[in-house]
Amino acid sequence: MSSTFGRLFRITTFGEPHGVAMGVVVDGCPARLELTPEDVQRQLDRRRPGQGSLTSARDEQDQVEILSGLDNGLTLGSPIAMMVRNGDQRPGEYAGTQDIPRPSHADFTTQEKFGIRPSSGGGRASARETWARVAGGAVAEKWLAREFGVEIVAWVDRVGEEGPADVDVLTVSRRQVDASEIRTSDPALAGPMAKAVQVAKQEKDSVGGVIACVCRGVPTGWGEPVFDKLEALLAKGMLSIPAAKGIEIGSGFSGTRMRGSAHNDPFVQKGQGLGTVTNHSGGIQGGISNGEPILFRVAFKPPATIGTAQETASYSGKETKLEARGRHDPCVVPRAVPIVEAMSALVLADLALIQRTQK
Amino acid sequence: MSSTFGRLFRITTFGEPHGVAMGVVVDGCPARLELTPEDVQRQLDRRRPGQGSLTSARDEQDQVEILSGLDNGLTLGSPIAMMVRNGDQRPGEYAGTQDIPRPSHADFTTQEKFGIRPSSGGGRASARETWARVAGGAVAEKWLAREFGVEIVAWVDRVGEEGPADVDVLTVSRRQVDASEIRTSDPALAGPMAKAVQVAKQEKDSVGGVIACVCRGVPTGWGEPVFDKLEALLAKGMLSIPAAKGIEIGSGFSGTRMRGSAHNDPFVQKGQGLGTVTNHSGGIQGGISNGEPILFRVAFKPPATIGTAQETASYSGKETKLEARGRHDPCVVPRAVPIVEAMSALVLADLALIQRTQK
Amino acid sequence: MSSTFGRLFRITTFGEPHGVAMGVVVDGCPARLELTPEDVQRQLDRRRPGQGSLTSARDEQDQVEILSGLDNGLTLGSPIAMMVRNGDQRPGEYAGTQDIPRPSHADFTTQEKFGIRPSSGGGRASARETWARVAGGAVAEKWLAREFGVEIVAWVDRVGEEGPADVDVLTVSRRQVDASEIRTSDPALAGPMAKAVQVAKQEKDSVGGVIACVCRGVPTGWGEPVFDKLEALLAKGMLSIPAAKGIEIGSGFSGTRMRGSAHNDPFVQKGQGLGTVTNHSGGIQGGISNGEPILFRVAFKPPATIGTAQETASYSGKETKLEARGRHDPCVVPRAVPIVEAMSALVLADLALIQRTQK
Amino acid sequence: MSSTFGRLFRITTFGEPHGVAMGVVVDGCPARLELTPEDVQRQLDRRRPGQGSLTSARDEQDQVEILSGLDNGLTLGSPIAMMVRNGDQRPGEYAGTQDIPRPSHADFTTQEKFGIRPSSGGGRASARETWARVAGGAVAEKWLAREFGVEIVAWVDRVGEEGPADVDVLTVSRRQVDASEIRTSDPALAGPMAKAVQVAKQEKDSVGGVIACVCRGVPTGWGEPVFDKLEALLAKGMLSIPAAKGIEIGSGFSGTRMRGSAHNDPFVQKGQGLGTVTNHSGGIQGGISNGEPILFRVAFKPPATIGTAQETASYSGKETKLEARGRHDPCVVPRAVPIVEAMSALVLADLALIQRTQK
Repeated sequence: MSSTFGRLFRITTFGEPHGVAMGVVVDGCPARLELTPEDVQRQLDRRRPGQGSLTSARDEQDQVEILSGLDNGLTLGSPIAMMVRNGDQRPGEYAGTQDIPRPSHADFTTQEKFGIRPSSGGGRASARETWARVAGGAVAEKWLAREFGVEIVAWVDRVGEEGPADVDVLTVSRRQVDASEIRTSDPALAGPMAKAVQVAKQEKDSVGGVIACVCRGVPTGWGEPVFDKLEALLAKGMLSIPAAKGIEIGSGFSGTRMRGSAHNDPFVQKGQGLGTVTNHSGGIQGGISNGEPILFRVAFKPPATIGTAQETASYSGKETKLEARGRHDPCVVPRAVPIVEAMSALVLADLALIQRTQK
Repeated sequence: MSSTFGRLFRITTFGEPHGVAMGVVVDGCPARLELTPEDVQRQLDRRRPGQGSLTSARDEQDQVEILSGLDNGLTLGSPIAMMVRNGDQRPGEYAGTQDIPRPSHADFTTQEKFGIRPSSGGGRASARETWARVAGGAVAEKWLAREFGVEIVAWVDRVGEEGPADVDVLTVSRRQVDASEIRTSDPALAGPMAKAVQVAKQEKDSVGGVIACVCRGVPTGWGEPVFDKLEALLAKGMLSIPAAKGIEIGSGFSGTRMRGSAHNDPFVQKGQGLGTVTNHSGGIQGGISNGEPILFRVAFKPPATIGTAQETASYSGKETKLEARGRHDPCVVPRAVPIVEAMSALVLADLALIQRTQK
Repeated sequence: MSSTFGRLFRITTFGEPHGVAMGVVVDGCPARLELTPEDVQRQLDRRRPGQGSLTSARDEQDQVEILSGLDNGLTLGSPIAMMVRNGDQRPGEYAGTQDIPRPSHADFTTQEKFGIRPSSGGGRASARETWARVAGGAVAEKWLAREFGVEIVAWVDRVGEEGPADVDVLTVSRRQVDASEIRTSDPALAGPMAKAVQVAKQEKDSVGGVIACVCRGVPTGWGEPVFDKLEALLAKGMLSIPAAKGIEIGSGFSGTRMRGSAHNDPFVQKGQGLGTVTNHSGGIQGGISNGEPILFRVAFKPPATIGTAQETASYSGKETKLEARGRHDPCVVPRAVPIVEAMSALVLADLALIQRTQK
Repeated sequence: MSSTFGRLFRITTFGEPHGVAMGVVVDGCPARLELTPEDVQRQLDRRRPGQGSLTSARDEQDQVEILSGLDNGLTLGSPIAMMVRNGDQRPGEYAGTQDIPRPSHADFTTQEKFGIRPSSGGGRASARETWARVAGGAVAEKWLAREFGVEIVAWVDRVGEEGPADVDVLTVSRRQVDASEIRTSDPALAGPMAKAVQVAKQEKDSVGGVIACVCRGVPTGWGEPVFDKLEALLAKGMLSIPAAKGIEIGSGFSGTRMRGSAHNDPFVQKGQGLGTVTNHSGGIQGGISNGEPILFRVAFKPPATIGTAQETASYSGKETKLEARGRHDPCVVPRAVPIVEAMSALVLADLALIQRTQK
């Protein structure tokens, strides 16, 4: 089940970055949804490397081809398969990594797990795999928007020490986020964040960061009470993204320093129903959405591939030096923004379908 | 699937705290494991409330009864069902909560989701549900210990502002953790932490905290490459615990402030294989265990039930005041220690079985 | 997953017949269903042995106890656990079977699979396990009846050479079925069928048979197009019943002798929609219900436990004779009627929930 | 989950026959298996239409392309995606079927389920979907053969009234089966069976049949005790094949006419372990393989598409006549032989992996 995510709205992904193709099968998407390649391509374009000075210069071939599941622009309720061929394979770039597991990469653990590893590149652990998530997430997002008016917006909250971003979670939009290449929506931070990335790049190093995300318009009642809590499934989805090292919902780690009397979100009438005065809960109580915006933050480590030489050991245990060549991102967070949105959409679409069974 | 956790080593839990019984069915535990009620009761006793001045005074009836799956003290490979009857039901305690959803509890969202809520208490969202997790986790833990020598130890890392605990992750033991009622293993912090809880209790308030956990002896190769990464499943398991609001693996959020050159864990020969010099990865690379100790931290919010009166609204939207009566914990982290261990054991046992399919 | 059936409407069963208890956890039943122990007990009573001269004389203790999931007689949407303690344990009855695997029983294969077997009786392979299925199925059936008006009726179609029963599938009722102890609804066959069983019993032998089943009132649209076809899930459910050896849907094996021109079911207007003139399809086309009655038949082998001495071999390969003592049914089909109904209800309830996701 | 089959060794299929492509993702195949496109193509060629006078004249483009999961001819443990583009689309052939649901096809039920249907052809219900099963099954089969020496052979047992085939289940081979175009391995029946198909074809009609299958070399211990019995999963797999209407394991329906004393399979020493003298059980006892050949038979109805005009009704309920044009098989069983083998291999591979968790 390694390559399947979701129960009712499910994606199954495939592809090694340096093999023939990457792809995704979206199963469980309800029928009669209008869907075009452009709906998917829009988010894929935001994920693509080579978008500016802050990301790597690879020109990934990521024009999506939809192979199945549509008829006259409408979904049929059958699996929607999408694919992209891998055009730009440069195995030479990975020369020297066959005998030396790259530190903090998946090379060593993949070898230990399977007794074999791809002859070049990162295999399924590569960031290229996220192409399939973003494609699948775009379908989920389209359905959530049409059916419930759900809006999902993620942004860069911090790069290294630059942050957190000052953002109005009720109004922040993708347009605002995309206004800066670094994809924060705090204009005052765009410059310092970009500079932190550029400095790391110049120093042949990398830098980590944090992405924040809001999901607006989620109705009450999504999420299951015990193990499949909304926050638990978001946590699984986010921590499955390469380089993610943590997640916090609502008040998160800082909330652990608060008293209950300050942390509790009192109820108040809002429209026809109840809302809360504050939102330390991040829109989720007892694993179930309460109608307030869903809020969370995801930690991304500094990319493991760096140009600086590293002292390490070969597979056979011999001390050696490793120096990465070729293209690599000094910071993943700008490109990870649409990936966080995609995983959010997949979690929400799945829980939305499950909640329909209660009607 | 709300009440099932795991794929091959699975638990299914049941029970409302104020109903007839709580229980768990453990399915997928391999045959021929020696198992006694004491193996399970040991961890249940650590979870039980009323253990000291820092927890609530309820005397939960939690003597486990094993209903199936054993023959002459050995598991049969069939489901192991365990149960405890709910002896100490005091619905009166919840008087007044029928018309008013408790702030930051699951009362409101449960009603919105199901169109019905238990007539008293928290239903499946209650902390009492964790009895079943701890019982199931104890079986997983026994198997992991016997089969692989895995050791899992959690401790209180911080209470409010008191922390983090200074702990040697290579040697910390449950005996050390249980030496203080607050369940930290840092002697210098036991006093301040306990005091923080007592002060909150006196002020009819509550306080949050952080639990840290180490899993030692996990072989290389556990965890799946894409969606079922070891850290993703740990994140799901931990964020499904009531009151949990965040998780970080290895360097976590603080690692996002580091440069790659400092964050990467260089390889070095250890014994017959490779180990890493540092462990910012928290024992996991690319979703797969690398043989180093697995390290993570879980954030717990201050409990929502407090004695102080709160301004809030009734289900019908009317402004009102709510004041909790009866017993409630001012801080969940001491009792959550065995719950974190249980969820860790369940995740690891499941992935251990999956990894067997590669042999 | 051996002991879980269903995806959204799921049961997980536990218990060895000669252990402490048998039980079932029903997860995924929608909230606000009226449910009483009597709803469940009614079908359990039909399954119970010792009901007449045709079944074994055991007086199973099978009064159901509902442990969770209900509040004031309504389901909460949480797991409904039900249990019965095993009162009548007579391990002596199984004396002599420890060294000799009973022919055509699961003794040998259980030992081969798990490296261990229960010290007495059939473990999970025992017919006693079906108690849990019938209890779970009764909940599914109640929900299907209230929500959609679905009616499920099974009957004995053949015993040995006596049959098939001449039954009007549009009107046959459980009352008619229960009018004879053998549970056929063809009065002309009740006598010959009963006699076939009695003769087998007198000769210390056993006899096989066939059960037919109709599900009326199933709306169009239940069942999934490819692997989770309605007939595929019915087949899985039925072939998981102990002693079941075959299933046929609609025209089944006899339909393979027909020409397409005779076998096809032409459409015709019925009420507001379309129906079919004939029903060789058994109410299912392409894996999806078409609104016509769902019809299928299940083959049950003659019970393996017989009083006659059998030449066989011990576990160590030594030639020996085995002669069963104690109580055993000479024919399972009368008692299997409610089990077939239960498995049908579980399959239909699951697919009904899945179909809700299309709305 | 409609388009996913299996738990650990899983396939997910996609594609409408008249869309862009058909495909399959095989997830869970262990690493380091030698696999070539030829391994897969061999079975695809046996499934392909247009192989002779008995099948339809379509020339399906079914050269498999492997998109992922391999490196230097070895599996990586990652998903193996395989695809074929749909070259030969003739929507004109389906003219007239848009207003009239074809009798005993999935047109009507698909429309009822999804509120939409493909604008031409049968969508996911088409026989073309089985391309993906055969491709996936070929991978499973390769692994089973290399790892355990398992051999799977299916053949046509009956066509209309011609049969059953007289076959030695211990020795029958695919070479023998393929010696006749009708794919029976009984030389005396090849002629009469072929004639039955040709006569039906000449009369613009169709004819049903039965396929038998043997799986040799399956070790003891595969299959789960309760719901995931080996026969239950085979039944699910087989009844998910288009046009399948029944399955019987071992003695099946005819066994229901036997006495237990004759039906039981006595044990006897075979080699180092136990075998059985007879094999009425079909190689499975209590849901678990016993080391004897696994035997079962699958019923296939006469194809619904016939050239003869049929009286039926349009979607709007109007009486009308329908006459199929274009290419269609008068009998599916010769081409269904590799499909039955594929589904058998998928079931066995999945259970083989699950059984590894007991070691």
